[in-house]
Amino acid sequence: MYKCNQIRLQQTIEYFSRFGATENGGVTRLSLSEEDLAARQYFRECCEALGMEVKVDDMANMYAVLSGKYDLPPIVMGSHLDSVVKGGRFDGVLGVLTALEAVRTIVDNDIELEAPLMIVNFTNEEGARFEPAMMSSGVITGKFEKETMLRSVDREGITFAEALSKSGYEGKAENRLKEAYAYLELHIEQGPVLEAEGIEIGVVEGVMGMVCYEIHIKGESNHAGTTPMKMRKDPMLLAAKLISYLDKELGDVDETLVYTFGRMHTMPNIPTVIPSEVIFTIDSRHKDPNIMEQVENILRSLPKEDSGCTVHANKLWGRDTVHFTPAICDEVEVACQRFGYSSRRIYSGAGHDAQFIAAIVPSVMIFVPSAGGKSHCEEEETSYEECARGADVLLESILMLQAKQSLHQPITTK
Amino acid sequence: MYKCNQIRLQQTIEYFSRFGATENGGVTRLSLSEEDLAARQYFRECCEALGMEVKVDDMANMYAVLSGKYDLPPIVMGSHLDSVVKGGRFDGVLGVLTALEAVRTIVDNDIELEAPLMIVNFTNEEGARFEPAMMSSGVITGKFEKETMLRSVDREGITFAEALSKSGYEGKAENRLKEAYAYLELHIEQGPVLEAEGIEIGVVEGVMGMVCYEIHIKGESNHAGTTPMKMRKDPMLLAAKLISYLDKELGDVDETLVYTFGRMHTMPNIPTVIPSEVIFTIDSRHKDPNIMEQVENILRSLPKEDSGCTVHANKLWGRDTVHFTPAICDEVEVACQRFGYSSRRIYSGAGHDAQFIAAIVPSVMIFVPSAGGKSHCEEEETSYEECARGADVLLESILMLQAKQSLHQPITTK
Repeated sequence: MYKCNQIRLQQTIEYFSRFGATENGGVTRLSLSEEDLAARQYFRECCEALGMEVKVDDMANMYAVLSGKYDLPPIVMGSHLDSVVKGGRFDGVLGVLTALEAVRTIVDNDIELEAPLMIVNFTNEEGARFEPAMMSSGVITGKFEKETMLRSVDREGITFAEALSKSGYEGKAENRLKEAYAYLELHIEQGPVLEAEGIEIGVVEGVMGMVCYEIHIKGESNHAGTTPMKMRKDPMLLAAKLISYLDKELGDVDETLVYTFGRMHTMPNIPTVIPSEVIFTIDSRHKDPNIMEQVENILRSLPKEDSGCTVHANKLWGRDTVHFTPAICDEVEVACQRFGYSSRRIYSGAGHDAQFIAAIVPSVMIFVPSAGGKSHCEEEETSYEECARGADVLLESILMLQAKQSLHQPITTK
Repeated sequence: MYKCNQIRLQQTIEYFSRFGATENGGVTRLSLSEEDLAARQYFRECCEALGMEVKVDDMANMYAVLSGKYDLPPIVMGSHLDSVVKGGRFDGVLGVLTALEAVRTIVDNDIELEAPLMIVNFTNEEGARFEPAMMSSGVITGKFEKETMLRSVDREGITFAEALSKSGYEGKAENRLKEAYAYLELHIEQGPVLEAEGIEIGVVEGVMGMVCYEIHIKGESNHAGTTPMKMRKDPMLLAAKLISYLDKELGDVDETLVYTFGRMHTMPNIPTVIPSEVIFTIDSRHKDPNIMEQVENILRSLPKEDSGCTVHANKLWGRDTVHFTPAICDEVEVACQRFGYSSRRIYSGAGHDAQFIAAIVPSVMIFVPSAGGKSHCEEEETSYEECARGADVLLESILMLQAKQSLHQPITTK
C-alpha cells in the first residue's frame, strides 16, 4: 500500500492558494481570469514535470495524461481550479491537487501502470463568472449547448467566447473526455455531517435531486400610515405565513429532506409603504425521487389566493438524483478500510462535475470533512491530515481499479 | 357664502400637472428640479396677477401675500408643489391650488379682508430628492438643523445647498413664516377611509404618532444542499415566525393600529445559500401614545435569541402624535355643514408640513377623498368635484377665521 506525502500535498495546496489569494486567507479565482490562468499554467508545469502530456479541449478543459503500458481507456481523476468570489482554498482545487499528489506518488515509487491515468481540470465549475455552474462538464456530456454557453456574459460584459479566445486555452473538440474506465472526483463535503460524526472519508453514492421554486405573491401597495389593516392586501404578511406553513409541511416529509428560503425580493422595499409584491425562492433536495415528488406536490398545492393576494409557484429549475456507480463506491470503501480510515456512505447535496460525467463514465466522488460545514467562503477549512487521507484513498482506489481493468473486468454498467 | 369655481380649479390643476408630467398621467416633480422651478414660476405669476406679493425665505419656501386692511398676522394656507418620482397630480399641489382658487374667488368677489391672507409653498416636503421629508417646514420650526439639511445629497451627488443656490430661490431667513393667526393645509387623504365611508371632507384632528423599528436577525450562512435542517441557524425561518407573531400580537392591541413590514433585506440573497442575516422593518402608527407604548413594549420584548439566531430590535425613528387646534377643527366642520358636505373627524397616518407648523401656528388640515386610497403613484385620483368641495370648505373656513380675527378673538392656544 502506498501512502501519499502529506507535507508535499500541503505545500502544493499552499502554493496554489497564492493564485487569487484574498486578504482573509481565501481565494478569488474566477474561471479564465488572470489568477485562474496562472494556476492553470502552474498545474500544466507540475504535470509536464511528471512526464504527463497536457491536452486542452474546445471548452478549455485540461487533461494531463500519464501513459500506461497499454493504450486503454484512462482512469480519470480531477475537479476544477476555479473558485467563487472570496471562496476557500479547498473547494475544487483539492480534487486536482490530490490527483496530482497521487500521480507524484506513483512516479516516485515507479509504480507500473497498465492503462493511462488522467487528471482533468474542468472549466468554470462554479459558474461564478459565467452562468451556469458546471458549464464545461455539461457541454462535453451534452447537458448544455455549447453555442448558448459561448454567449454567457460576465459582470463586465465579456462573453465566455471572448474569455476563451483570449485565454490561450481554446483547444480542440477532439480532445474532449469521451471513453474512460472510471472517473473519481475528490472534494470537500461542503456540509457538516462528516465533521459532526467524526468520520474521515465520505463515500459519495450520488448527488441529490433538487428543485427550486419561486413563490410570487402579489398584493396591493399602499401608504403604511393611512391604510387600515382590514383594507390591506399585504403580501409580506402572507409570505411569512406561507414560509412557516411550508416549514411545517416539509419538515414532516422526511428528516433528511433539506429546504431553504434563500432569496427574497420585496417591492418597493420601503419601510413606509405596504409592499405590492413579495417573491421568495425555495430550494429543496433529497436523494429519493418519491420524496421530491411529495415536495413538488406541496409547492404546487399552495393556495392561488389568500388574504386578498394572488400566489403563483413557478419552478425555476430542477434536477433528478444522480447515482454514482455502486461497484466503484465499494472499491473506495475497501480502500478506506485498508488504511483504517473511518468512512460512511453519503449523498451530495451540492452539484459537482461528477454528476454530469457520470452520464458517460462510471463515476464516484470522495468527500473529506469541511470544518463547520463551511464552503464558498474564506473560512473554508480542511486539515492537511484530512486532505492527505483523501489523497491516500484516491490513490489506493485508482490502483485497485487499475488492477481490475488489467484483468479486463468491466465496472458494473450504469 | 361664496363657492369656488370648479372649472377654473380643474384647469389650474391640469395646467400644473404638465410640470413634470409622466407618460401614465402622473408627475415627477422633484424639489428644485427643472420641473419644480417651472411650477414655482407659474405659481408666482398666478399670485402676482392677483396682486399678491411673493417672498421667499432661505429654505426656498415661497410666501404669496394678499394684503388686508390692517397689518395683522396673516391667515396662511398652502402645502407643497414637489412630488415623488412617478407621483400623482394631487398630493401637495392641491393644497396650494385650492388656496389659489380661494384667493381668486375672494378677489373676484371683492371680499374685503381685515388681515393679510398668505399662500405658502413649502420646499421639499416629499424628501424624495433630498432626505428627510418635510425638510423646510422642519427647518423653520426648529425641528431640523439647517446646516445638516444643506448637506443632504440627491442621487446624483448634488447637495441641497447647491440645488438651492442654483435655483434662484435662496431667499432671506427674515422672510420665514413666524407669527400667523392660523395655518390651514388641504391635502388628499392618501388613504381609503373617506371614499369607503362615502364622506366628502375629512376634518383632520392631528397626525398619528409613529415608530419604525428594524429587526436584525443573525443566523449562519451555509450551503442549502449540504446542511441538515437540524444543524442550521436559519434567520429566514425565524423572520417568518416573528412577523407572524408580531401580526398576531399587534393585531390584538387596537383595531385602528396600523403596522407594516415594508422593507426586508436578506443576505447573501441567493437561492442556494442559507441566509446569514435577515433584516426587516416594522412601521406602526396610532394617535394614542399609550397604544404606541404598548407597541414599543412588544417590539422591545422580542426574544434576543431564538432558533440559534440572535435578534436585535433597533428603533430607526419615531414621532409623537401631533394634535391640531380643536377650535379650528370646529370652524372647518361648521364650514362643511354650511355647504351640506358630509364630514368626519380623522387622524392623518401620513406626515405633513402642518405637523411641524402646528408647533408655531394654530393649525388644521382638510382632507379630500383619495380614490382607492392610492397616493405617491400615477394612479392617484380625486375628482374635480371633490377638489372643489375642498376649496369651498377652505375658503369658508378662512373667512370665518377672518371674522374671528377681526373681533380680536384669539384661537384657543395649543
